[in-house]
Amino acid sequence: MIKALLSALLVLVAVSSAFGKYIPKTGKRIPQTLSRGWGDQLIWAQTYEEGLYWSRSQNKPLMIIFHLADCPHSAALKKVITEDNDIQKRLDEDFIILNLMYETTDKHLSPDGQYVPRIMFVDPSMTVRADINGRYRNRLYAYEPADLTLLKTNMDAAKKLLKSEL
Amino acid sequence: MIKALLSALLVLVAVSSAFGKYIPKTGKRIPQTLSRGWGDQLIWAQTYEEGLYWSRSQNKPLMIIFHLADCPHSAALKKVITEDNDIQKRLDEDFIILNLMYETTDKHLSPDGQYVPRIMFVDPSMTVRADINGRYRNRLYAYEPADLTLLKTNMDAAKKLLKSEL
Repeated sequence: MIKALLSALLVLVAVSSAFGKYIPKTGKRIPQTLSRGWGDQLIWAQTYEEGLYWSRSQNKPLMIIFHLADCPHSAALKKVITEDNDIQKRLDEDFIILNLMYETTDKHLSPDGQYVPRIMFVDPSMTVRADINGRYRNRLYAYEPADLTLLKTNMDAAKKLLKSEL
Repeated sequence: MIKALLSALLVLVAVSSAFGKYIPKTGKRIPQTLSRGWGDQLIWAQTYEEGLYWSRSQNKPLMIIFHLADCPHSAALKKVITEDNDIQKRLDEDFIILNLMYETTDKHLSPDGQYVPRIMFVDPSMTVRADINGRYRNRLYAYEPADLTLLKTNMDAAKKLLKSEL
């Protein structure tokens, strides 16, 4: 008897909690993350404005990754960046980071066009570091999975801030 | 013997997978969500640019919630909006949604100042609906938990688009 009551209670609880939360017609979704797969353990800025704010207030360079969900080159770069613990650690400790799938209105972030994947560095003085680029002359800010060492060198260059803190 | 080998193998697998992923010095973090607690089952735009793009291409009004993590009024409004399945459903099906903790550079999104919580509607024609406001004369776009019915009325008003699709 008590068992039956308990079962009924359990069913009731299950039913009420199922009704408790909104579930889309198309079924339950996995919540979107700000990392979008570029490092779940890192703290990402949501927007360029937020990135600039944190860059200035923490005096750390901002690194922006432009990418697209259905771009195989973006996916390949994402894989090596996510799996490289040295880069993840540097990004976590020394940089403000932002990944974007939509271009901003700021033309300074696309000095030689809007393409993906593209990595731009911004100094805490809010200067876009157009001088820090990869090894492709036609797409200065593109990186391939094989360019990870160059990317690390460029991260070091971005860490040398344009204005000292005093 | 086989058991011991298997155990050793298991330990190896466990150790290698623990070493496999970057974990911050301060300990493992919960990945940040784009919803920031305003509805995990909804699909959120990341930036204003992305929101405008989806609004235009899907011909749905954009609803922007400005909020702050440590603001009790934002938290109170978040609670009622998240728990109201009718609003969650409408947001999911009829709106492009964006929640922001940092202001954009677009002054049209702060017609009477930058405060939180603040809800702005934008028509797919990219016109900010400054005509749709709450019940506070000094903060036209502020809503309190008790204003949920008014918010729904305003959502209906935003759904009456300024330009027809044609």
